[in-house]
Formats: sequence, structure tokens, C-alpha cells
Amino acid sequence: MPRATPARVAQVVTQEWGTELIQSWNKNGWFAMPQQVGDKIARLIGAAPGEVVATDSTSVNLFKVLSAAMNIAAADAPNGPMTRKRIVSERSNFPTDLYIAEALCKQHGMELVLVEPEEIAASLTADVAVLMLTHVNYRTGAMHHMAAVTAAAHAEGILTVWDLAHSAGAVPVDLKKARADFAVGCGYKYLNGGPGAPAFVWVNPQHADRPDLPFMQPLAGWWGHVAPFEFTPDYRPAPGIRRYQCGTQPIISLAALECGVDTLLAAEPLGGMAALRSKSLALTDLFIALVEERCAGHGLGLATPREHAQRGSQVCLTKDQGAYAIVQALIARGVIGDYRAGDPSILRQAQDGPSSGQTGKKDILRFGFTPLYIGFVDVWNAVEQLKQVLESGEWQRPEFNRKHAVT
Amino acid sequence: MPRATPARVAQVVTQEWGTELIQSWNKNGWFAMPQQVGDKIARLIGAAPGEVVATDSTSVNLFKVLSAAMNIAAADAPNGPMTRKRIVSERSNFPTDLYIAEALCKQHGMELVLVEPEEIAASLTADVAVLMLTHVNYRTGAMHHMAAVTAAAHAEGILTVWDLAHSAGAVPVDLKKARADFAVGCGYKYLNGGPGAPAFVWVNPQHADRPDLPFMQPLAGWWGHVAPFEFTPDYRPAPGIRRYQCGTQPIISLAALECGVDTLLAAEPLGGMAALRSKSLALTDLFIALVEERCAGHGLGLATPREHAQRGSQVCLTKDQGAYAIVQALIARGVIGDYRAGDPSILRQAQDGPSSGQTGKKDILRFGFTPLYIGFVDVWNAVEQLKQVLESGEWQRPEFNRKHAVT
Repeated sequence: MPRATPARVAQVVTQEWGTELIQSWNKNGWFAMPQQVGDKIARLIGAAPGEVVATDSTSVNLFKVLSAAMNIAAADAPNGPMTRKRIVSERSNFPTDLYIAEALCKQHGMELVLVEPEEIAASLTADVAVLMLTHVNYRTGAMHHMAAVTAAAHAEGILTVWDLAHSAGAVPVDLKKARADFAVGCGYKYLNGGPGAPAFVWVNPQHADRPDLPFMQPLAGWWGHVAPFEFTPDYRPAPGIRRYQCGTQPIISLAALECGVDTLLAAEPLGGMAALRSKSLALTDLFIALVEERCAGHGLGLATPREHAQRGSQVCLTKDQGAYAIVQALIARGVIGDYRAGDPSILRQAQDGPSSGQTGKKDILRFGFTPLYIGFVDVWNAVEQLKQVLESGEWQRPEFNRKHAVT
Repeated sequence: MPRATPARVAQVVTQEWGTELIQSWNKNGWFAMPQQVGDKIARLIGAAPGEVVATDSTSVNLFKVLSAAMNIAAADAPNGPMTRKRIVSERSNFPTDLYIAEALCKQHGMELVLVEPEEIAASLTADVAVLMLTHVNYRTGAMHHMAAVTAAAHAEGILTVWDLAHSAGAVPVDLKKARADFAVGCGYKYLNGGPGAPAFVWVNPQHADRPDLPFMQPLAGWWGHVAPFEFTPDYRPAPGIRRYQCGTQPIISLAALECGVDTLLAAEPLGGMAALRSKSLALTDLFIALVEERCAGHGLGLATPREHAQRGSQVCLTKDQGAYAIVQALIARGVIGDYRAGDPSILRQAQDGPSSGQTGKKDILRFGFTPLYIGFVDVWNAVEQLKQVLESGEWQRPEFNRKHAVT
């Protein structure tokens, strides 16, 4: 939690709400907050002011941009009915992305095609409307080359949707330079916006205004109207990214998100995301080296690519047995990682492929490294605790093997 | 703002987030919070535990339930293609409701039909799929008889969607007794959840589980999955209302909403919503009587019905000129109401109809009476201030005639 957050949240609650009441929608800028926080997030992802809004959840924003991409693809189809009947994504993409895409495919009579990372290039054919990828994989920490993948998609006339959940604030992102089409991301990971913080959405300005498609984005709520306080019964979308707003936003949580984004922007005079990236790679390099040196012989594998260009800001270890309990034992020692279960349904048919495919079935221990405030001594201490958990066998105790509702 | 809110919000931020970090998803019940707060809201609207979730915005929830209603109507259409091609709503319904319905109609090849209140009964024909109404009109304060209107819709095989934005916590609502089909509502009006508090959604249990319609609710995010932490690539909806969740929710704002709902539930031993309704009617009766007695001769009209059964917990006055400035002058005196512009586009063709139709074109001064904490002396004082504003002519000063972004 950023140090500034408790006081700022208290100010919104006690002063702006408790004393100034609904006047704060104007006086304290509540109504403009999604755009104001969006403009700040834009600086972290290679977007311009007025191109991002902080609003809703990642899943809801994904529904908006996937709908828009599908509607644009249909409207721009040459000569009659649309022949692009597929959305391509990664089988190990974060599930909510796949669920939202599946729902939209069912509705539009399209097909969701799930492939392994190394199969993406071959899957970009003329019958594909949209390529939807998460920039940094939640399960492996592997990162796509956004510009190269986008160029390959565009060469086939395919639009791209990028989920930045594990990259905004974690790695340098340059959406405009990569010529991406749409992006969404969450506020509660590397942006430190607090539990369930509002998410964000970006649309390349070339797609933002389509007078021929007033309902391109079907969550056409009043905050996306060109003049919401005229209260007219007919919908006329606002220009630019504002049409990607829908309903009234949770102001207290948005204020907390702004504090998190501000901490990242405070690093701009010191080199910003480029400097943070250097530190991030040094942290994850050190973690990998120390785990391999000090925890050898315990059956740990590495799911995250060693190549810098393919790595996000997390390191995922694999283990055949006990991953869940090891994470619980580490949490009890103050080292808070995530456990992600291996999923037999994403197991590849061929078990002899490259490592990125094999990790699907194995349980994962995930360690995130927020370069803004995680230090090298934290890395050393985390590995030391992991070593002690493994060597002592304490993870086999019953209390570490009890499952929670949320793991 | 409820007295309990600042301390509870500070606890979530400083203790649960700042100290206990992601462990709070289990330990402090963050993950279950939409259901927990939903169960509490259920007690205010005639629903049972497990039938309501507090989540997303009213507009997003409306998209979910309208989609579900349209998908159910299509699936249940006898013998081939659906003949029900219309959604009926009120022309003066809150605009976001109309925008969302318009977007869905465009997508489904259906027609949104807007009528005046007195035309609803005649509009319920065999080609209508869904009747979507706001229980208490935001512009006039007029309240529909939910059970009677629902019965009339059902008699023609039409599903009902109710927006409770101006009724939850303001008037007694009994969704189950009225045999309503779907309902949504907001958390930031009479529920006192704070600025932009999360909204809620209810679905009649008879419609909640449809194994034949896994994407009945197309915002199929991971929080609506039967087992979100299994991270499987295929969507399987959770039973009951849980499938109406989509993405991760803003926990800080949800905690504030719970404080607001708790203040209403604290009135249960004293008679609950029935007792609050008696006080609400006494407050609005007094306000109407005092305005007519003390502010006569200033051209004020009454948009809100005098009949108790047709009145929500607000009183809307009309004025041909100066409504905006009068509201601003009142706010400067500490009486905080709303201005709502008359909209020429909702002007009826015939100007000689009953009063409920004529108010469409006139500017509105809206006064909300939260029976939980607004007292009779507040009503007296508000009318006294209104009288002074009108008699002094101070509302004509330039500073009260400057328009804000949000009015």
C-alpha cells in the first residue's frame, strides 16, 4: 500500500463525501476522475492523454473492446458477409479473458481458437477477426513481443486486443509504437491501486470514433454519452475513449488507484519504466540464480523464460508435488507468493514439446517482483525462506495443506 | 455519510490491505463480499439470501439482466423464430436504462418502444419480449405498482426488468411477492454507500439457472464461474445469482456500501422499511403542503403524484424559468437538491394530457427525503430557505447561473 493512500482515502470519505456531499462531483473532480487517472496510466503504457479511462473491471473492459473489435471487423469486411469467423487466443491465457471471448463468440456465431504460444504465428489466417493475448502470461511470466506479434496480425488484416494485467507498471509498454489496436489492464497488481481497484481501457485513436458504429461498444451507459447531463433518451457516443465509460464509478476505490499510479509516476525523473525494468530484470535474474544455487535437489523447475526479452516481472517455479503447501508455508513466514494449480485440461497432447507448453500441467509457485519497492535483500530473504521450508519439510504439516476458498 | 463508514474504510485500507495484504481475500472475506452485501440488500427488497449480489454499476447490471431476459424470451419462444421483437420502456425512464436497452435491441435486431406511463398497459402485446421500468421515476418521483404491472406483463407472456435506483432503501419493495423477473439498483442513493458505490442485481430464482443457456448473461467473467480458482479455460456458470458476477470488485467501495446498508438494517427492530415508509410519506406530505402554503405565487408546480401509492420518497417541483439557479442558490444555503433540465425531446405530442405527461418539458427541482435521517425540522427549514430564495430574487445573481460540467 502506498504511504499516501490512507490519508487520501480518508479525505475523500470524510471531507469530500461527508462534508461536501454531491457537490464534489464538480468541486472535487469526481466526475472527471476516470479520465484523470486514465491520463496518468497512459504515461506508463505508451498512450497519450485522452486515450485511457480508469473504469469498471478488466473483464467488463475486455467485453467492451472485444465487442468493438468484432464489430469493426464485421463493418470493414469487404463485399458482403463477414468471412473472418475466428478469435485466436492462448490456451493458457487468464481464464476470464477466455470466458468473455467465448461468450462473445457464441453470440456472434464465431469460434474461439486456443493455441500454444509457438502456434500463434501459424494461426493468423485470413479467417481470423481478432487476436487476443495477455502481454505477460499469468501462469509462466512469459512475455510476448507486442510490436512483432501485432505486425504479424496486421499483415493478415487481424485486429489485436492486449491484456496488460501483468505488464502495466511492471514492464515498459508502448502501445502506440507497437501499433496495437485495443488494450485493457487491471489496477490492483503492479499499479498498487488496492483490492479490486478499477481497471483501465485504451483504444487506438484510429478506432475510437466510428460514426457508422454508434453501438460499437455495446455497454452504452450514460457516462459514455456525449452529454450525459442533457438526459436525452437517445444514445450519442462521446468522442474518443470517453465512450468506453458505462455507469457511475466507485470514487473511493478510484482515489486509491490514483495514489498507486502516482507512486509509479514519481519514478519518472529517475528514468521511469526503463529504469524500473532494469531493476526488475536484475531482481528476477537474482531470484532465478539463487533458487537454482540454494534450493537445488528439491524438484523445482523454471516456468519463466530465461531470455530477458521474453520475461515479465515475475518468476514462476514448477513442482510436481506440494506447491500449494509450500506457498502456504512461505506466507506464514512472510513471503507472499501465489499458487496456481496445474490444469490437466490445458495439458498438451504431445509431452515432448518445448518447456513453455509442458508447464501447463504442473503446479506453479508464482513470485511477483514489483521493482518500485522490492529490493535485492528481499530476494535473498525470500530464497532463504524457501530453502528452509523445503529442507525442513514443514510444508507437509496439515495446516499448510488446508484449502481456502481463494488460493 | 454513515458514522461507521470512515473507521470501517480505514480498517480495510490500513489493516486488511496494508498489513494483511492478499491474505484478506480469504481471511477478511473480500471474495465473498459481493454476496455478503447482496444478502443484506436482499432484506430491503423482498428477496432471499443468495439471490442478490452487490457488484459493478447499475448500467452494467442492466446489460446483464436485459440480455438474460432477451435470451430467455428467445429460447422459450414456441415453434421456431422469436416473434417477440420489442422491448417496452417509459420515455422518461432514466437515460442510461434506455441507452443500454437501445444497444441490446440493435444487436438482437429488436425494437425499443418508448411510451408514456398511461400507455404502458396498452403497449403490452404479444410481440413484446421485455418490459423494463424504473420503479420510481427519477424525474417525477412517480411510483409504479410493481405487482400489478408485473401481472399485466405476465398475462401477455412478457418478462419484467425493474430498476430500483430510487426505491431500494426509500420505499418498501417486495420483488418476490410482486413476482418480478429481474431487478437492478444502485448503492449510492438511499443505500448511502458513498460516491459511485457498487450497484446490485437480483434474478428471480426461477430464471437463475438455465443449463440450456450457459451464456444467458454474456458478461461471463471469472467471478461468475462455478470454480474460478480452478482456472479452467472453459466457462461453466456458477449456480444462482453468482453467475451475475463478472470481474474483481472494488473492495474499499464495497466495504463503504456495506456500512450504508447496515444503517438501514438497524431500523428493522423498529419496523424496518414499513416504518420508514410511514415517515417518508409524512415528510413528503409536509413538504408539498408547506411549499404550496408558503411559496405560493412563484410559479412552482408539482410533478410528483399526490396519491401515496404512486409516490416514491422524493418531491419534484416544476418551474418554467430559473430552476437551475434556484437549486444553486439553495445549495449555497445548505439545502442540497438536484436540478433536472426539461427535455424537449420527451415533450409529448399532445399538450393537453394528464399532468404526468406534461412535466417532461419543464425544468425540475428535485428534493429527496431519506426517511432514515431526514427530520421534519429539515423539511420546515428547506421550505423556509426556498421561500427566501424566491422572495429575495437572489437566484438571479450571475454566480447561481453558471453551469457546471455536472449539474
